[in-house]
Amino acid sequence: MQNAASTGLQLTPDRFAGVTLLGGGPGEADLITVAGLRALHGADVVVHDRLGPVELLDALPASVERVNVAKVPRGPFTPQERINEILLEHARSGRSVVRLKGGDGYVFGRGFEELEYLRAAGVAVRVIPGLSSSISVPALAGIPVTHRGLVHEFVVVSGHVPPGHADSLVDWDALARLRGTLVLMMAVENAGRIATALLRGGRPATQGVAVVQDGSMPTQRVLRTTLGELDGFVQASGVRPPAVIVVGDVTGLDA
Amino acid sequence: MQNAASTGLQLTPDRFAGVTLLGGGPGEADLITVAGLRALHGADVVVHDRLGPVELLDALPASVERVNVAKVPRGPFTPQERINEILLEHARSGRSVVRLKGGDGYVFGRGFEELEYLRAAGVAVRVIPGLSSSISVPALAGIPVTHRGLVHEFVVVSGHVPPGHADSLVDWDALARLRGTLVLMMAVENAGRIATALLRGGRPATQGVAVVQDGSMPTQRVLRTTLGELDGFVQASGVRPPAVIVVGDVTGLDA
Repeated sequence: MQNAASTGLQLTPDRFAGVTLLGGGPGEADLITVAGLRALHGADVVVHDRLGPVELLDALPASVERVNVAKVPRGPFTPQERINEILLEHARSGRSVVRLKGGDGYVFGRGFEELEYLRAAGVAVRVIPGLSSSISVPALAGIPVTHRGLVHEFVVVSGHVPPGHADSLVDWDALARLRGTLVLMMAVENAGRIATALLRGGRPATQGVAVVQDGSMPTQRVLRTTLGELDGFVQASGVRPPAVIVVGDVTGLDA
Repeated sequence: MQNAASTGLQLTPDRFAGVTLLGGGPGEADLITVAGLRALHGADVVVHDRLGPVELLDALPASVERVNVAKVPRGPFTPQERINEILLEHARSGRSVVRLKGGDGYVFGRGFEELEYLRAAGVAVRVIPGLSSSISVPALAGIPVTHRGLVHEFVVVSGHVPPGHADSLVDWDALARLRGTLVLMMAVENAGRIATALLRGGRPATQGVAVVQDGSMPTQRVLRTTLGELDGFVQASGVRPPAVIVVGDVTGLDA
C-alpha cells in the first residue's frame, strides 16, 4: 500500500499504474479490505471471475471496463494463459488494471503465476491480500479453525486432485496423522475419496465434519456429518461448489 | 453482516447491539475489511491489543472509549478471564462493544473463548473475520503459501509451546513429513527447537526459510535462511515478535 491510509469512513480511490492482484474475500461485499475497495475504484479495467464480491462491480463508474474470465466447473472457461495475456494487454495500454479474485489470490488462486508472467514482461504488479475462504468461511459458519487447548494447528489443502492421482502433491497419510483441523478446498467432487484416504491414515470415522456451501452469501448453508459418512452425505445433500469442508474436533464446538 | 453492503466509497457506521469480535488484519490500516471499519465506527467502546491496526482508533470520535488490554510478551498483561469480564461489563451496560484483534480472531486469537463466555452470559455476539497474518504477511513479503505444481497445501501452526513440551498438541514429526508449506506463528522464541524437530522428522537442512517481522508495517523486514541454520540465524539477526516464519519451497520463488 503506497498511498496514505484511509482512517475515516470517506474512502478515496487508489489508482495503481500496472496490475493489482486483489483478493476480494469470500463473496459478501463488505468482506473486501478497505485497500481492495479503494483499488477497485481506482481501476480502468477489472478482470474478474465468477466468485468473490462481484456485486461491487455494479457500483463502479460506467467507464470502468469489466472483463469476465470466469472458469465455471465443466463449463466454458478462459485458460490461464489467456488470462495472463488479457492482463498484459490492458497493462501495456497504460491502464490501471485490477485482477479481482475470490478469497485470497495466493491460496489456490494462481496469483503468483500471474505475477511471474507480468513481472517477466516488465509490468508493475502489486498484491493486496484478501480474506481466504479457508479461514473466513468456517468462521462465519461459527467454526474456529483453532481453539486453545483443543487444536494448535490447521492445514489447508486442495481437494482438486484426488488422493492417489499421478498429479497429487499431497501425502494424505501424513495429513491424516496430524491432530489439527483440516480445511478442504475445492473438494466436493473428491470428498468420498479424500475421506477414504483420511480414514485409512488413522482418522476416526466418528470425527466431525462441517460442509459450508456458499460461505458468507445469502444462500450459505452449513451441514454437519462425520468422516465415515461424508461420501454418501455429500451425494445425498446435493452440496455444490463453492464449498469449504472442515474436518476436526472444532466442528463440534457450540456456543 | 446484517446491514446492507457499502458498495461505494462513502461508508456508513455499523452499530451492533452486543459484542463484535473483529479481526483487524496484520496491522496496516487499509488491510482491515470494510465491514470491520464500519463496525469500529459504530462502537461505543473498543477493547484492543497492542497488535493490529491500532492507528484506526485515532480516527474515531473522542466519545468512543478505548480499553487497551495489550498482552506484551513478558510484560504486564491482562489475563483472558479479565478481558472476558471487561467485554461483559461493557455489553451489559447496553453499549456497542468492538473487540479488536490483530489478524483473525480465530487463528490463535482466543476469539472463540470470548464468544463462548459472552454467549453463555446471554450477550449477542457477531464475528467479523480479518486477514490472518499467516497468509497475508507472507503474501505482502512476496511469498505465496501455495503455488500450482509446487505445493497444494499449507499448515499454520503455533510455535508458542515448544516441541516435546507436556502442553504441546502438535505432532512435529508428522508435520515434518508433509510436503506442504509450514507457516509458524509465535515461533521466534522456539525457532531453534522447532527447526531441530523438523529436521529430525525428515525435512532437509537446505530447505528455505523466510522470516517476516512486522509484516505489513513500515518497519517490515524479510530475512531468508535455511532450516539447518535457522536457530543461529534468529539469534544473530535479532528477530523479534511479531514475526511469521515460512518454511518450504515457496520461499525460493522469485519474480
